[in-house]
Amino acid sequence: MNKEKQYKTYTERMQKIADINNAIAVLGWDKEVNLPVKGARFRSQQVATLSGISHELFVDSEFGDLLEQLNAGNSLDIKQKKNVALSLKDYQRNNKLSKEFVIRRSKIVSESYHAWVTANKQSDFEIFKPSLKKLVDLKLEEAELIGYEEHPYDALLDEFEPGMTTAELETLFIDVREQLVEFVKEIKQQPEINSAFLNQFYQKDKQWDYGIEILKTIGYDFGAGRQDISPHPFTTNFSSEDVRVTTRIDENDFSNMLWSCIHEGGHALYEQGLPSDQYGLPLGAHISLGIHESQSRLWENNVGRSKAFWNHHYPALQALFPEHLGDLSVDAFYAAINKVQANLIRTEADELHYHFHVLIRFEIEKGLLEGSIPFDEVKDIWNAKYKEYLGVDVPNDSKGILQDIHWSHGSFGYFPTYSLGSFYAAQFYNQAEKDIAGLEGKIASGNTSELLDWLRTNIHAHGRFYSSQEICEKVTGEPLNFKYFMDYARKKFGSIYGLK
Amino acid sequence: MNKEKQYKTYTERMQKIADINNAIAVLGWDKEVNLPVKGARFRSQQVATLSGISHELFVDSEFGDLLEQLNAGNSLDIKQKKNVALSLKDYQRNNKLSKEFVIRRSKIVSESYHAWVTANKQSDFEIFKPSLKKLVDLKLEEAELIGYEEHPYDALLDEFEPGMTTAELETLFIDVREQLVEFVKEIKQQPEINSAFLNQFYQKDKQWDYGIEILKTIGYDFGAGRQDISPHPFTTNFSSEDVRVTTRIDENDFSNMLWSCIHEGGHALYEQGLPSDQYGLPLGAHISLGIHESQSRLWENNVGRSKAFWNHHYPALQALFPEHLGDLSVDAFYAAINKVQANLIRTEADELHYHFHVLIRFEIEKGLLEGSIPFDEVKDIWNAKYKEYLGVDVPNDSKGILQDIHWSHGSFGYFPTYSLGSFYAAQFYNQAEKDIAGLEGKIASGNTSELLDWLRTNIHAHGRFYSSQEICEKVTGEPLNFKYFMDYARKKFGSIYGLK
Repeated sequence: MNKEKQYKTYTERMQKIADINNAIAVLGWDKEVNLPVKGARFRSQQVATLSGISHELFVDSEFGDLLEQLNAGNSLDIKQKKNVALSLKDYQRNNKLSKEFVIRRSKIVSESYHAWVTANKQSDFEIFKPSLKKLVDLKLEEAELIGYEEHPYDALLDEFEPGMTTAELETLFIDVREQLVEFVKEIKQQPEINSAFLNQFYQKDKQWDYGIEILKTIGYDFGAGRQDISPHPFTTNFSSEDVRVTTRIDENDFSNMLWSCIHEGGHALYEQGLPSDQYGLPLGAHISLGIHESQSRLWENNVGRSKAFWNHHYPALQALFPEHLGDLSVDAFYAAINKVQANLIRTEADELHYHFHVLIRFEIEKGLLEGSIPFDEVKDIWNAKYKEYLGVDVPNDSKGILQDIHWSHGSFGYFPTYSLGSFYAAQFYNQAEKDIAGLEGKIASGNTSELLDWLRTNIHAHGRFYSSQEICEKVTGEPLNFKYFMDYARKKFGSIYGLK
Repeated sequence: MNKEKQYKTYTERMQKIADINNAIAVLGWDKEVNLPVKGARFRSQQVATLSGISHELFVDSEFGDLLEQLNAGNSLDIKQKKNVALSLKDYQRNNKLSKEFVIRRSKIVSESYHAWVTANKQSDFEIFKPSLKKLVDLKLEEAELIGYEEHPYDALLDEFEPGMTTAELETLFIDVREQLVEFVKEIKQQPEINSAFLNQFYQKDKQWDYGIEILKTIGYDFGAGRQDISPHPFTTNFSSEDVRVTTRIDENDFSNMLWSCIHEGGHALYEQGLPSDQYGLPLGAHISLGIHESQSRLWENNVGRSKAFWNHHYPALQALFPEHLGDLSVDAFYAAINKVQANLIRTEADELHYHFHVLIRFEIEKGLLEGSIPFDEVKDIWNAKYKEYLGVDVPNDSKGILQDIHWSHGSFGYFPTYSLGSFYAAQFYNQAEKDIAGLEGKIASGNTSELLDWLRTNIHAHGRFYSSQEICEKVTGEPLNFKYFMDYARKKFGSIYGLK
């Protein structure tokens, strides 16, 4: 077979796998948005069947041989080469885990999930502790199978943030501890901002319509997507031409809907911007969870929580909710949506405290894997760290160590990508301000399309051609640097809180 | 392998195929209900990929061997034997069509569909005529491949109504021509019924809520299903525990929503009543399109358009729409929803004229296959038959021979199942009245649950264990007999129209 034919065979196989995975994604979306209660049993079976078929098609050794051959050759163009190299890397990672291990892992994860649900309901960490131990052992085993150079956590990180290392994260989080913790302490000495008006009654239908408007305004294409309601907001896609977001509406908390729309909208803009002619191939996919999160955070925080953005949008919002906002200045609104306040729950954290939650999770995950944190002490350590970094007392396990589902899914090395997202976002946004003349003024006049074009051209259009590290250097001229986030935070919150 | 193991292997394969087919059904439902415009391209590709995988799993010759072996043995119980025998029959039917033929068929169907869309838009049959000729040749070839005893149409019918023959249909439609056409002529000599109030403004949300109520009242389980809006109402299912219906709402035509809810609800009650422990197997599936339609028609017409039903439900409907119905008696409402009036469009036909549409389609399909109707004359013949049976002039092709999509999909032998449904419904309902003491009174007091139980026990619970013919004899003691429909029609419409 000549290279051209081989590449065609490779493409067809990848698209076939993508078709199945996207069908699984439709079933998953439908489960969260539409599924009647009794439908869950057979839906799980249907997803398991499709997952099995997709997995078999990908780990097939003949396909592996094809990838090896294509990768060894020289006749492919640069994009084709990159597709093949990345697919081979994914193939090799997948094939390092035996079928026996994958089945055992899925069994432990399934049991752990149920244990976590019960533990969380009863707010009793003891119920989940044996599962946590099993999960950590499992992840250590997985790390050995995958292989790593310095730290087993590297192997786990690689699944979510290829190329990122534990050592780099440690350096980054030292900055968080030294600079961000101190800065937040300064803020807390300032008078508290009033944000009570955000928790008045905001009528559901009006919130819904406003969310749709905001999505349109940032450039989300409703011709290639839709918004629905689900218990937990998320973004999913079945191609770059069908990218869906969900939100939730709490009539007593306007923030809930507003930030989920902009955040998920940011994720969706990335997916809608991926090249559809690379459907099913690495160059048609997102780079990493950290880069994905950089897109959602950039829209949510750097744009959506900026003064410029609300200078333009606030009058219409006031007109929609005159009873709550009619007499309130845009400055008061802007301060309220940026209020800094320690909170027990990661998903409800403000833009700055957020990273303390991730920092704690990172320290604990690492400690558990290294064996430096004993399982019998992990809960006390969790609580002590919340006291130390956030100054809050954890009242019960459910609001403490059991608050997130991720461990029970077997996801270790996942949380840091949330912080990486914000840090990348700050660095990208800083560059965009340099590249787009008068960006702030443009946003203040309701024009975010140049920013979107910039993101499309510089990031979205490349798919996985560049790694996180490479795209960061290519776009901003240097590796990820926490300085940009700190500069952004100091400037914005220093001004809001009247710090010198 | 012993029989038990073989049967397990058989079951697993069938469930795997069902999982894929049900995933396809989810993608299909989503396409009609949710799909953003740009999502269509990759959605088609995803469905095609899954269909290919499902097809391969079913026509696999090793699986055929397994079916042969299981079918030849003696150690299975009676239900298992039936499952295997039916699967073998399906397998053999499928394997009579070569891969070359299936690909060619799908190509011709796809081209024909596009030709039909254009022809229908321009209301010009000439555009579709070459496709119709190709489709008829294709269906004749298919009939030869499938095999038949008397008439090629038998082979096509068998796909939708296994066991039904052209000869039986001819006998049935002689009755329709002789008895129903005459009866409708009598009705037309009576004064016209006023139904104009059904076309006043009925507010969308109130219609929606009422549709949900009506679905609940007939026993549709919203724990195992949901209702949504789609351009064309339909029922689909992904297991008997997730059976979904759709409706459409026209604010100037209350009937539209009302009858689609009850009709699709009837289909859904059948699917929700199929035994979930036979998921993926013939005994977990419906018998035929005719029996499926008997369930929707029974609820729509025998129950939903009965005096007893509205004696109970009308006061609440009046209270919901007092401006239109407040001063209108239940008798006037009952007459209006049963108004008999010739109409060009099958899908808008009343309960009696409906069968003339099917009769014409049957005569023309048969004539085209036999070659007794030349393609150059088929349109004139269509128009002449509408004049003869319905007394209406066809003003253009779009409202005439191009009105239905089915031929362009390659569906020949499908239309008769619509009439069979009504005829079975009348015969089943007649039996239910004998078996359930005081059924009419029960319905008049809002109780349809005994009727549903009767359908569940006598029909739904068996899956495909009995054929259409067998279930009809088992439940009613005799084969399908048009007399029951005529008796029902004469009694009901004779009374409404004051005939002797």
